[in-house]
Amino acid sequence: MRWCRFVLSLIFGACLASAAASADSRPTAVNLLPLPSSVQFGSGRLAVDTAFQIGASGVVDDRLRHAVARALVRLSRQTGLEVSRSLAADATKARLTIVCDGPGASVPSLDENESYTLEVTGDRATLRAPTVVGALRGLETVLQLTTADRGGWYLPAVTIQDTPRFRWRGLLIDVARHWMPMDVIKRNLDLMAAVKLNVLHLHLTEDQGFRIESKRYPALHEKGSDGNYFTQAEMKELIAYAADCGIRVIPEFDMPGHSTSWLVGHPELGSAPGPYSIERTWGIMEPALDPTREEVYKLLDGFLGEMAALFPDAYLHIGGDENKGTQWMANERIRAFMKQHDIADPNGLQAYFNKRLLTIVQKHGKKMIGWDEVLQPGLPKDIIVQSWRGPKSLGEAAKQGYSGILSNGYYLDLNFPTSQHYLVDPLPDSLGLTAEQAAHVLGGEAAMWSEYVDPGNIDSRLWPRLAAVAERLWSPKTVTDVDDVYRRLALFSPWLEIAGSRHITGQGILVRNLAKGGDIAAVSTLIGVIEPVKEYRRGDLHKSTQFTPLTRVSDTAQPESFEAHRVNRAIDALVADAPRFSLNADNLATTFSRWRDVGPAISAAEAGSRALAEAGTMPEDLAALGTLGLEALAYLRNGTAPAEGWADAALARITTAETPRAECQFAMVSGMRLLVAAADQRAGFDPSDAAGWQAKVKTRAGVK
Amino acid sequence: MRWCRFVLSLIFGACLASAAASADSRPTAVNLLPLPSSVQFGSGRLAVDTAFQIGASGVVDDRLRHAVARALVRLSRQTGLEVSRSLAADATKARLTIVCDGPGASVPSLDENESYTLEVTGDRATLRAPTVVGALRGLETVLQLTTADRGGWYLPAVTIQDTPRFRWRGLLIDVARHWMPMDVIKRNLDLMAAVKLNVLHLHLTEDQGFRIESKRYPALHEKGSDGNYFTQAEMKELIAYAADCGIRVIPEFDMPGHSTSWLVGHPELGSAPGPYSIERTWGIMEPALDPTREEVYKLLDGFLGEMAALFPDAYLHIGGDENKGTQWMANERIRAFMKQHDIADPNGLQAYFNKRLLTIVQKHGKKMIGWDEVLQPGLPKDIIVQSWRGPKSLGEAAKQGYSGILSNGYYLDLNFPTSQHYLVDPLPDSLGLTAEQAAHVLGGEAAMWSEYVDPGNIDSRLWPRLAAVAERLWSPKTVTDVDDVYRRLALFSPWLEIAGSRHITGQGILVRNLAKGGDIAAVSTLIGVIEPVKEYRRGDLHKSTQFTPLTRVSDTAQPESFEAHRVNRAIDALVADAPRFSLNADNLATTFSRWRDVGPAISAAEAGSRALAEAGTMPEDLAALGTLGLEALAYLRNGTAPAEGWADAALARITTAETPRAECQFAMVSGMRLLVAAADQRAGFDPSDAAGWQAKVKTRAGVK
Repeated sequence: MRWCRFVLSLIFGACLASAAASADSRPTAVNLLPLPSSVQFGSGRLAVDTAFQIGASGVVDDRLRHAVARALVRLSRQTGLEVSRSLAADATKARLTIVCDGPGASVPSLDENESYTLEVTGDRATLRAPTVVGALRGLETVLQLTTADRGGWYLPAVTIQDTPRFRWRGLLIDVARHWMPMDVIKRNLDLMAAVKLNVLHLHLTEDQGFRIESKRYPALHEKGSDGNYFTQAEMKELIAYAADCGIRVIPEFDMPGHSTSWLVGHPELGSAPGPYSIERTWGIMEPALDPTREEVYKLLDGFLGEMAALFPDAYLHIGGDENKGTQWMANERIRAFMKQHDIADPNGLQAYFNKRLLTIVQKHGKKMIGWDEVLQPGLPKDIIVQSWRGPKSLGEAAKQGYSGILSNGYYLDLNFPTSQHYLVDPLPDSLGLTAEQAAHVLGGEAAMWSEYVDPGNIDSRLWPRLAAVAERLWSPKTVTDVDDVYRRLALFSPWLEIAGSRHITGQGILVRNLAKGGDIAAVSTLIGVIEPVKEYRRGDLHKSTQFTPLTRVSDTAQPESFEAHRVNRAIDALVADAPRFSLNADNLATTFSRWRDVGPAISAAEAGSRALAEAGTMPEDLAALGTLGLEALAYLRNGTAPAEGWADAALARITTAETPRAECQFAMVSGMRLLVAAADQRAGFDPSDAAGWQAKVKTRAGVK
Repeated sequence: MRWCRFVLSLIFGACLASAAASADSRPTAVNLLPLPSSVQFGSGRLAVDTAFQIGASGVVDDRLRHAVARALVRLSRQTGLEVSRSLAADATKARLTIVCDGPGASVPSLDENESYTLEVTGDRATLRAPTVVGALRGLETVLQLTTADRGGWYLPAVTIQDTPRFRWRGLLIDVARHWMPMDVIKRNLDLMAAVKLNVLHLHLTEDQGFRIESKRYPALHEKGSDGNYFTQAEMKELIAYAADCGIRVIPEFDMPGHSTSWLVGHPELGSAPGPYSIERTWGIMEPALDPTREEVYKLLDGFLGEMAALFPDAYLHIGGDENKGTQWMANERIRAFMKQHDIADPNGLQAYFNKRLLTIVQKHGKKMIGWDEVLQPGLPKDIIVQSWRGPKSLGEAAKQGYSGILSNGYYLDLNFPTSQHYLVDPLPDSLGLTAEQAAHVLGGEAAMWSEYVDPGNIDSRLWPRLAAVAERLWSPKTVTDVDDVYRRLALFSPWLEIAGSRHITGQGILVRNLAKGGDIAAVSTLIGVIEPVKEYRRGDLHKSTQFTPLTRVSDTAQPESFEAHRVNRAIDALVADAPRFSLNADNLATTFSRWRDVGPAISAAEAGSRALAEAGTMPEDLAALGTLGLEALAYLRNGTAPAEGWADAALARITTAETPRAECQFAMVSGMRLLVAAADQRAGFDPSDAAGWQAKVKTRAGVK
């Protein structure tokens, strides 16, 4: 059944291009994110004005009523129009009619049908869905379609058929390393729904914090959380809020490793004597639950029973990753147990632990999900593997008949660009899976681990990049146009803000704080073109803890600089515009002048801002990049050859500027190298071999 | 006792100027808001680095512990330094030691002693206070004093003695007309504490909403609130949160008018038959409780008893304003009652109602506070009058022995500039009060009525202007330097953001939404120099309701444009710089060029943004203002006379531009007029009579 849907998606995907290319007054671009399976624009438009009403002629339940009310508030806020806030009493008078065949499961499940069709003509719009959840997905499409010109707000005439490619489209939020309170989670649930994600995975326990109330074992949260945890009442509220958005909530209790915070209140569960205190630093820690003691399983039975009752989802995540086994091997009694039970190594002991755990999870009516490491021989086929290792690992599991979801490639905390995450496919052709095997790949989850993430910057770490991952998981496999996803991210960034995101505003607050009364615009320009270093390099450059304030330069810089991306792409286009070199030239000159001028302004501002002083020579470097950018532009436009040695010096200057400072790097160096190389090679341009010239420029620049 | 403190303040106030003028490496300006009673800078500085710790050697309670923990988090966030998050175990090793003589009242009261002294030397800092609340006020001063230069973060050596001028320094938030949820109130409590305000007045009931849960009469909130109300548990949480900040919470239940929302669930309380529905429009409505029916007093007794138990403050606000009495006079039975009781008019009937109400309020152990209208003969002297009418009304009450607080002049929802609110003194000399009478003027309350205010824009309506009102109520009467308060508002605006305010970021969200993918910078420039029309004019220009989205142009514009203020002041200085006319000229030219260029860009953006289209010709007008500004600058700098008729045309163009559009106006027109007039009068400049020339310029400009 999943396969059928998948094939359908491919067909719909192929339709997209033709829709986008359609003529006349019809829209020439599909401004939707994620892109639907099929979009066919018609002619005409349906007005959205103060008389706009939404009615329903099929199944109506509270979830639909709430969703319509929320959609109308957002429609009103995004348009500035005062519209009715509730379902029209008389559906025949509504301009948009929703027709649901059924309510959908009250507890959202993996089997939810989320498809919908939307038909807009000049007279009316109809949103049809087999379930209310499908209608919710379609309502987001309606909000995104609402557009304006001098004639007013309207929906373009269109026929959309849409169904998700994958059933599991999630986001993991690590609320443990840094605490994320209710409002952070709630607004991100709204945003997830806006881009059609359907699973919130809460990483609730870690070495650094135990974030859920246990009524049976209150020492767990009382001693393991610094007072920062979800009460069970709050969690019920979150689960209900998520269900109202058609989003599942999966709790993760990471064990046997990553468990220091459990041991603060219950040292007797540990594999070393203790006492334990909440871990404040980052890394893979040694503390682990002791798999050889029956008291451990007794507590887990009680605790997981309590959690199984609290969380209605069919799945319960037991973590299972990155346990080094150091404490186990250091404990004589544990070593004796292993020998006695013929267990060779820590892996074997963890397999034993997982089997015991599985029994408990099943006893409480749940299916187990865990990270790659949990996959051991003899496990039932209804467990799910979450892969931090990659599609290959997932493919192998699928071949054994295990279902899985992909997280590798979607770790948004690693500060990689949208393009990189976007092109990671959970089902690459290279896996060589049969249709049946492929059906075991259920989808994926973006992950937001929180070593460097707190309520003040989490939105900027998630958005808008998460929307691109959401598209990968929802849209047909054929949807892979990187430039177009950047175009749509820019378009929908403000729309996400109206829906509650703070991904843009958070940076402004930190920039103004960094500037400390100095030149805010100048500081903003610098911060706007740098990015934190990638992957796990930040921890190598600067030791930080749970108490390090996340207001430093590297917290202020966005994970991906869209300004640097713009500059890089503008330079690409300029170089491709040989031999005229006029495309974007004025715009780039303005940008380079600004860099040149803000260098000194920021250096002055630094005098009053120690936090900014971390950036070291970055202001001067930015000024130098601006200056050499202007020089390169002049050479290109005037057709004059640079002075002997100019290009070598410029490229060397760029390399100097590339050194990380404040755990950050300039994000437009590849473009700047290309620009310098183009200026250097200007004289050798041969109109009969433009491609050959471009290749030479790239080689000179040292970029691919 | 209050008078003594007041005299002391005057003496301290006089010291300020000398402190500010002190020499050498000592700070030359007092960067504190509100300004303390006395500041004497010394020489030397105390380092603030990762070893910075706060200890306490006097009374320590939970409130102090929490306050220190919060202060350390903010210190850490504002500096980027990782510092210990809790009170030092060993006070002798702390760099800042807090010495409190007593804990302060657990329920903050009007009699709280909030004074403190802070002494910083090169070795250590000591914060002394008679109560923990005083220490809280001092901690905010410490955070504001923390500054940096290339040598690092530090506190300058200083001796500060500080005590508030008024005991009642409040903010009224109308949570009824637009609902304000918990997080809005909590973050604004933090911000109030940051500027030493001490009373949160919650306007809980209105025609448009009943915002507090009543367990005895649940129909009140269930039918009167659209589901948006504080549960009693939430209100307890807010009260505790406020108490932790040394802030009182005063509940207001407005009656007998402003009470439509009560009548939705209890129509029998009304003076007309009903049924009633929640009011959605703005204005003074007719519905009023029926003062002639015993059931009304029975319900009020029950309800106010419940509220008296919920709210620990000694005072309970009964509103009492703006009841037209129309429903009363239209009701035959009520007219008969009046005749029978010898009551001449609605005022008399309201006096009767208030007397009955007073008995109920007193029965539940509370003192009554109400708006001007409640003051009627025969009331006990312990009631408090809140004046929306003005200092004169307050002075008259004081002469009768009634205590009062001033709100007239502090209505922040009217969009007046900081300077106007700042100079309103609750105790102007003109009142001619004796010391004893003056002591009855307890302070004041800023008011944030919420017809045009919701969670998305309330911060920008409150801040930073509220900080200036806070200074008026805290600092010595002699502190009245308008330029200096603007300087300090600019300095502390980012600081307020780090403490949680969204007064700057909220605008960005709305600007980006208005721009709808168009030129965001251009839209931002336009919005940055306009302000909503003042006072109640907005309602005349555009009919709005509770459902009107507050995302329109007039919601996006800030109540006061600090950019326009900057331009106006820069023009003042330029004109005063005659005959050189060079001061600020370059800067103004840059600004005017931007205006000239963004005009067309915005007009283009409007094509895709109906909401922005409301602004009509404003983009062209801004371009025209930019162009004529550049022309005027050229005339002034070149010393050439404008062409015949140029000035008349320019002034006429400014007048055209001044027409309100989208309920907004350009806020720099007075400066532009002055600039044009100066250019016009350039030739007539007489070095021997610069003052005379300036006066002529002002006359020509038509500005004072």
